[in-house]
Amino acid sequence: MKTIILVGIGTGNPEHLTVQAINALQRAGTLFIPDKGEDKAELAQVRREICERYLEQPTLVPYRVPTRRNGSDYGQTVAEWHATLAGIFAELIATHVPDGGSCAFLVWGDPGLYDSTLRIVAQLPQPETFHVEVIPGITSIQALTSAHAIALNRIGEPVKITTGRRLVESGLGGDSVVMLDGQTAFIHADPELEIFWGAYLGTPDQLTIAGRLGDVRDTIVETRRAARARHGWIMDIYLLRQREP
Amino acid sequence: MKTIILVGIGTGNPEHLTVQAINALQRAGTLFIPDKGEDKAELAQVRREICERYLEQPTLVPYRVPTRRNGSDYGQTVAEWHATLAGIFAELIATHVPDGGSCAFLVWGDPGLYDSTLRIVAQLPQPETFHVEVIPGITSIQALTSAHAIALNRIGEPVKITTGRRLVESGLGGDSVVMLDGQTAFIHADPELEIFWGAYLGTPDQLTIAGRLGDVRDTIVETRRAARARHGWIMDIYLLRQREP
Repeated sequence: MKTIILVGIGTGNPEHLTVQAINALQRAGTLFIPDKGEDKAELAQVRREICERYLEQPTLVPYRVPTRRNGSDYGQTVAEWHATLAGIFAELIATHVPDGGSCAFLVWGDPGLYDSTLRIVAQLPQPETFHVEVIPGITSIQALTSAHAIALNRIGEPVKITTGRRLVESGLGGDSVVMLDGQTAFIHADPELEIFWGAYLGTPDQLTIAGRLGDVRDTIVETRRAARARHGWIMDIYLLRQREP
Repeated sequence: MKTIILVGIGTGNPEHLTVQAINALQRAGTLFIPDKGEDKAELAQVRREICERYLEQPTLVPYRVPTRRNGSDYGQTVAEWHATLAGIFAELIATHVPDGGSCAFLVWGDPGLYDSTLRIVAQLPQPETFHVEVIPGITSIQALTSAHAIALNRIGEPVKITTGRRLVESGLGGDSVVMLDGQTAFIHADPELEIFWGAYLGTPDQLTIAGRLGDVRDTIVETRRAARARHGWIMDIYLLRQREP
């Protein structure tokens, strides 16, 4: 048996790490570190800072993350990409983790929320030879609401967690927090809604904007465009909801 | 100005604390600790353990939490309860926090998710004299998905966060994670759904059950009843969703 620990590391603030996460990283013999290219060098820097700050002489093994193929069938391209990564993970573990040993993957946010690592690990060949352990982490949802000092939900009201793609396809359907929106889908929503937007949450570059959507929509679009150009990438999230009286 | 820090402490595992939360508690001069009576003595014990483990000579100020009045108008009784607590908080802060000083409230899970502390603090008299800071914490949602080693969302699919009360009133309406369900509302849901249930998540008493709802429903109801009788209280949560093919 080999143990695979998926460790949620929060959204970019090294202090988002929980004591449980630090202990898990110390326990894991080997840490696998994705290399997504120079575009997201700031993210790689946060990972390095976490390892240097909390671990003594960690064994870090970098691996190259393949780009997901563009295709008309979203489900199919995601499945292929996961399968490729499962092959890469299998090879990494076979090479670097001894029998009875353990390894960890550092996952942004929480391994249970819009992250692929759990699904990829579930596709490893010979699953009976692996024990999978998940360490929860601060998600971008908590980073968003804490940055704005607001509750996610109105009293007793439900909230939907959804994606930009879904927002375009299906409309809002109630108070919603929107992740993975590369297409600024909020510009089509009711201008009377309230929006709480945040980018690079938890990092020194954190940006937040809030207000009546009709009033702040253009500011968010322009702020987002400029920040993305400056950093080469952006991770943002927002809450859209009815304004409270 | 006085600083009020709301610190998310996770779901009952002292190791759920983030480094940011520990630093915030150390920075706060005074920690206000609710006393909810003997029923939830185990919860009080977790708070004490957190303070002892991470803080040197903390100043702990206990306060009595009033019981929420039962009434036919849910919104009205909640508003009254918040108003009473705002009065208690105002008095506590006036008595125990000097000008320019800071204090902290320890909040289960995350201050942004189905918790009242932010709303109560927003109702303090003379809000311009307070700076409110929120430190995110691990929610019971992350504790649930990590305990089951599952993703909350199916690929690209939305998930609703809702309450037992809402589930009874409005039905499921898609994959949903249900919090604050004292009435086991899941027993009325489609037996073909998949359920992932957890109680006392993160603590040594953690319970988890998963499966096709029709198969495990009665086991959950009975496990829940027995655990509640044994502990005198229960905090549980579950995810209900379509089974993946």
